Amino acid sequence: MGTSTRALKIGVIGFGPFAQFLAKTMIKQGHLISATSRSDHSGIAGNLGVDFYRDMEEFMGLEHDVILICTSIMSLSDVVNSIPFHCLKRPTLFADVLSVKEHPRQILLQEVPEDSDLVCTHPMFGPESGKDGWKDLKFMYERVRVRDEGLCSSFLNIFEHEGCKMLEMSCEEHDRLAAESQFVTHTIGRMLSEMHITNTPIDTKGFEKLVQVKENTENDSFDLYSGLYIHNRFAKQQMKNLESALQRVKESLEVRMNKQDGPKCN
Amino acid sequence: MGTSTRALKIGVIGFGPFAQFLAKTMIKQGHLISATSRSDHSGIAGNLGVDFYRDMEEFMGLEHDVILICTSIMSLSDVVNSIPFHCLKRPTLFADVLSVKEHPRQILLQEVPEDSDLVCTHPMFGPESGKDGWKDLKFMYERVRVRDEGLCSSFLNIFEHEGCKMLEMSCEEHDRLAAESQFVTHTIGRMLSEMHITNTPIDTKGFEKLVQVKENTENDSFDLYSGLYIHNRFAKQQMKNLESALQRVKESLEVRMNKQDGPKCN
Ligand SMILES: NC(=O)c1ccc[n+]([C@@H]2O[C@H](COP(=O)([O-])OP(=O)(O)OC[C@H]3O[C@@H](n4cnc5c(N)ncnc54)[C@H](OP(=O)(O)O)[C@@H]3O)[C@@H](O)[C@H]2O)c1
Ligand SMILES: NC(=O)c1ccc[n+]([C@@H]2O[C@H](COP(=O)([O-])OP(=O)(O)OC[C@H]3O[C@@H](n4cnc5c(N)ncnc54)[C@H](OP(=O)(O)O)[C@@H]3O)[C@@H](O)[C@H]2O)c1
Repeated sequence: MGTSTRALKIGVIGFGPFAQFLAKTMIKQGHLISATSRSDHSGIAGNLGVDFYRDMEEFMGLEHDVILICTSIMSLSDVVNSIPFHCLKRPTLFADVLSVKEHPRQILLQEVPEDSDLVCTHPMFGPESGKDGWKDLKFMYERVRVRDEGLCSSFLNIFEHEGCKMLEMSCEEHDRLAAESQFVTHTIGRMLSEMHITNTPIDTKGFEKLVQVKENTENDSFDLYSGLYIHNRFAKQQMKNLESALQRVKESLEVRMNKQDGPKCN
Repeated sequence: MGTSTRALKIGVIGFGPFAQFLAKTMIKQGHLISATSRSDHSGIAGNLGVDFYRDMEEFMGLEHDVILICTSIMSLSDVVNSIPFHCLKRPTLFADVLSVKEHPRQILLQEVPEDSDLVCTHPMFGPESGKDGWKDLKFMYERVRVRDEGLCSSFLNIFEHEGCKMLEMSCEEHDRLAAESQFVTHTIGRMLSEMHITNTPIDTKGFEKLVQVKENTENDSFDLYSGLYIHNRFAKQQMKNLESALQRVKESLEVRMNKQDGPKCN
């Protein structure tokens, strides 16, 4: 752990694949991690060195510096509504890592006690793209309500320390850009998955890239993907754009084909 | 030039971007290249060390070992019909590099004089993916009608010598696989191009790959792309598959969204 960093007590709510992936690096950095989740993940938590709590009230009564929300986008609202905030012993920094940002920002601003701080983040990588370290991978965040600057910086420093490219931007700007990029990528990956595309003996370099995009998408849950669509207000337009782009490409081919069938031309 | 290779006199018909790209490596290997084309490319040919002929009869009267057809897929039939085969001084190996294979196989088998040999090939790379050399890039071929084995091997050796992965397969098998891989890649690239996707500050690794696919597609002519569709009998089914895959992905999102709106569930 670097000299400028401070050991944090971090409580994780939602201990699925992504939380487990994050926890490994946090533990390596010397932070103390406890976790709670809908399902019993005490086995895997124990192996990682994470204290797992089945009881939410007990978990919320621990003296955490940070509470990190890692549930699926689709379940966020139910999960936040079930958090016993009254058990908090002291003001705490709440953070989330959801792949959409306006939605958790709004819900957390509404539900997190006024004396606790809030930072909304999106690590733009996952267990696959981040498997060889986080260097140069992107980390987006908005300091939504921060009074304890030191604590918030210590938390963000977890990612900075690993070499992430730190990008401060509004949750709205994030969602607009992520619909254009990440949602489009997941949709293409899922299209290719529906088509069961697979390597052939004559793959071009371009096709090899598409197979990788497909495989990465298949590693993510359908809950994650549907969250990108349902809780990012910019995603529906991108779905329309994909559909009409495919139609335009097809039409351009048909126009060319009919020209070919008609009178000869250059 | 390797000791086992022989300097060939190669005549290129259709001196567009791909032929120019191939010619550079052939000249580096010590082969003698002449070319003819619809348009006057004598300037660029001169710079590369290629003899350019505006007159097809004069070109066909040269004593070539190999005549390499590099025209666009869409123009193949017209171009082959305009070749003055009667000017040939001796049997010659005809080869083509079109990105579809059943179509040129059929036309060339029909038009090339019976005493000349025929090999149909597809180098599975282009000026972009092959810019740092051809090592490990794929090269498909079918020996359609070969009697002069030595000459055919010397020609194929151009690609083997550069480290290409040599794949012998039928033109039919090629077209089936290329529709699934290369045509799908070009279609996705052109969809993304229609959408004007572009790098954002929060790109994921997957999205960066899609931007590369888009950029590579934009380097290829629309004639090439329409040829992949119109002259590969397996491509239309792949276009249908792309459309229905996108519809199924969209429907799965809508089903999930409606479930969310209805009675609460896990
Ligand atoms: N995977 C990535 O690459 C990545 C990258 C950046 C951000 N993220 C974000 O990180 C979060 C977690 O992602 P993930 O990959 O681990 O998969 P996910 O499917 O998005 O989320 C799984 C987590 O959500 C919980 N959950 C799901 N439904 C629930 C419900 N009805 N009630 C309570 N909890 C529920 C699961 O709990 P149990 O396991 O206890 O059942 C598990 O902890 C998501 O918000 C995602 O957008 C993921
Ligand atoms: N680009 C690649 O990465 C790649 C890779 C593998 C195979 N190929 C194949 O290589 C061939 C050439 O590809 P390319 O990238 O150079 O671009 P292209 O647009 O497919 O073909 C350009 C060539 O076709 C000629 N041409 C077009 N229309 C013609 C017509 N009506 N009459 C006579 N000639 C005509 C052009 O002649 P002028 O220039 O004289 O006008 C030029 O030589 C294609 O069959 C393609 O499928 C390309």
